[in-house]
Amino acid sequence: MARLVGEEDLEDLARGAAVLGTGGGGNPYIGKLLARQAVRENGPVTLVDAAEVPDDAVVVQSAMMGAPTVMVEKLPRGDEAVNALLALQDHLGCRVTHIVCGEAGGINSTIPFVVAARTGLPLIDADGMGRAFPELQMLVPSMLGVSATPMVVADEKGNTVLLRTTGNRWTERFARAATIEMGCTALIACYAMKGHQVRETMVLGTLTLCQALGRVIARARAEHSDPVQAVTEQLNGHAVFRGRVADVERRTETGFARGRAVLAGLGSYGGAKLELNFQNEHLVAIRDGRVLASVPDLIIVLDSDSAEPITTEEIRYGFRVSVVTAPCDSRWRTDAGLALVGPRYFGYDFDYIPVEERVSAERDRP
Amino acid sequence: MARLVGEEDLEDLARGAAVLGTGGGGNPYIGKLLARQAVRENGPVTLVDAAEVPDDAVVVQSAMMGAPTVMVEKLPRGDEAVNALLALQDHLGCRVTHIVCGEAGGINSTIPFVVAARTGLPLIDADGMGRAFPELQMLVPSMLGVSATPMVVADEKGNTVLLRTTGNRWTERFARAATIEMGCTALIACYAMKGHQVRETMVLGTLTLCQALGRVIARARAEHSDPVQAVTEQLNGHAVFRGRVADVERRTETGFARGRAVLAGLGSYGGAKLELNFQNEHLVAIRDGRVLASVPDLIIVLDSDSAEPITTEEIRYGFRVSVVTAPCDSRWRTDAGLALVGPRYFGYDFDYIPVEERVSAERDRP
Repeated sequence: MARLVGEEDLEDLARGAAVLGTGGGGNPYIGKLLARQAVRENGPVTLVDAAEVPDDAVVVQSAMMGAPTVMVEKLPRGDEAVNALLALQDHLGCRVTHIVCGEAGGINSTIPFVVAARTGLPLIDADGMGRAFPELQMLVPSMLGVSATPMVVADEKGNTVLLRTTGNRWTERFARAATIEMGCTALIACYAMKGHQVRETMVLGTLTLCQALGRVIARARAEHSDPVQAVTEQLNGHAVFRGRVADVERRTETGFARGRAVLAGLGSYGGAKLELNFQNEHLVAIRDGRVLASVPDLIIVLDSDSAEPITTEEIRYGFRVSVVTAPCDSRWRTDAGLALVGPRYFGYDFDYIPVEERVSAERDRP
Repeated sequence: MARLVGEEDLEDLARGAAVLGTGGGGNPYIGKLLARQAVRENGPVTLVDAAEVPDDAVVVQSAMMGAPTVMVEKLPRGDEAVNALLALQDHLGCRVTHIVCGEAGGINSTIPFVVAARTGLPLIDADGMGRAFPELQMLVPSMLGVSATPMVVADEKGNTVLLRTTGNRWTERFARAATIEMGCTALIACYAMKGHQVRETMVLGTLTLCQALGRVIARARAEHSDPVQAVTEQLNGHAVFRGRVADVERRTETGFARGRAVLAGLGSYGGAKLELNFQNEHLVAIRDGRVLASVPDLIIVLDSDSAEPITTEEIRYGFRVSVVTAPCDSRWRTDAGLALVGPRYFGYDFDYIPVEERVSAERDRP
């Protein structure tokens, strides 16, 4: 059912999106400010269920691309994402009817609100991943044969790059190269698809889930109950570690924020050590030398007290954080899904094991 | 006056173009083979004078972009340049009526023949530089305000990148980044302009000059006279050095062939040393520590016996070569021209002095 999303909804939504962002997908504070300004100027955004979208709707994904380390310093001006959409529409030669999110994340779930608010187009309650991933081909629609191109990459100076490629891995390469030249962040419009393809290939209900996540955090804070536990329950996940950030290595490299963080256990985790490896998003969590969770499952880092999601560009020495894991969309667990976003794609020499199995094996250890 | 260029003309033309290529612009042997095949399959190309081109003609430049070190190993398949042209035509929304060269060079004066032969379009006797330069914004039309975009970069896999930028320096950055991702060579279509703009902004008669240069070399070889001298006279240039290549440093870096070559003098130059610095093209010639010639003037390296032009990716230890310098198009000597292609743009800490002044000062030295 269609509903209006106004200013008051954006805080929960951006925070919940950053939870699903698993460290990436952009800073929720900036995302909230960008969306709020657009909604304030243009009125609330119409959010529609995928079920309501006509089969022949022309749907385009709107997102920010680049390194989160840079996104927090180089904010979008606001019209780049709309420019990207309009340039893509020009090329498509037909009117875009709906906007949709490419991924869940603090910025990439809110930039589509900016575009929807400014263009008056409805936004579909869905995304392409059910979380955030660092690369452009890492969408369920991509796995199911939807082309990311024609795609437009646009910057704040007015430059646009239109890509038409022979595959989504190529698109990632060209778009990343253009993004780096644009200063490591850019706004994109891509994955044009029909309404029925949204239903067939996207992860549905993501924005509603983001908002629900934001709400349970807010409620737990208000009620002085445990917001980390509330997030864990909402996601059917597992709280797997609590500790203090003891070490962070982070570099902006090949257009990504790459690095690792080491957590020293606190409370019942005292003496244990958890290592997080990230490429924009958290890819792998290793506890005392054993893999505890890996892509494509969700590895979520939250402030231990407030459950504020902590992005990979923000994580700092001394932060007290809790790590929650949660299962990914089941399509990511197929062979095709793992070829696209499994640990081996990211260069790790181990096979994917569903996080619930890993966590249960860990619990059974003597 | 329009004339037909057939297979038999291409050898002289490609060799002469490589002379003006000043070390870059692509390998003339490969260029000749590519053009010959296209002309053999499709018939001769109509070469027209700029004076004959209608004011409202739609003219597009066709060229190869990338590092000459890679071009000699990764040859174009043949249809990429046509694909680039057609993709640009689609975007322009009007039929392209003429092809023109972006620069003079062994490949970049022959690829336009491939495109002209395959499309049946006439080729205009002109180019954008009167020589070759390494970067996309280094054209007289660019200096005079013509935009390189919309521009298409295409590869042999079927990928195309369409650029629309706010300036030609940006175009160079995006196109170079795309070219690097495509494997360091790509085919491009750009600088769409009207017929009157060709007359107002391009260097006219370049292909006729290329052919004349090739002919004087062939004639001198046949007559056992000095082909290096013949080239020098044809260009109103100066033969400034003769030596043996004693050292070559060459690397493929940021999408270019960069490096230096050191020549040890022979004959009347015995005991002297000449250093050549290049970025695809020869940028600066330094004799015994003093600048002898610099961009935008032409620094041409020829085999001492045959006057075969030697490109920067071919130059090898032991080659006996002669260095000829020649004045550039006078528009390059203006402040605007030097800002675009003068020695300071390339990072050298000295002012441009016309090569004929440098040579005459050198002659007057005690």
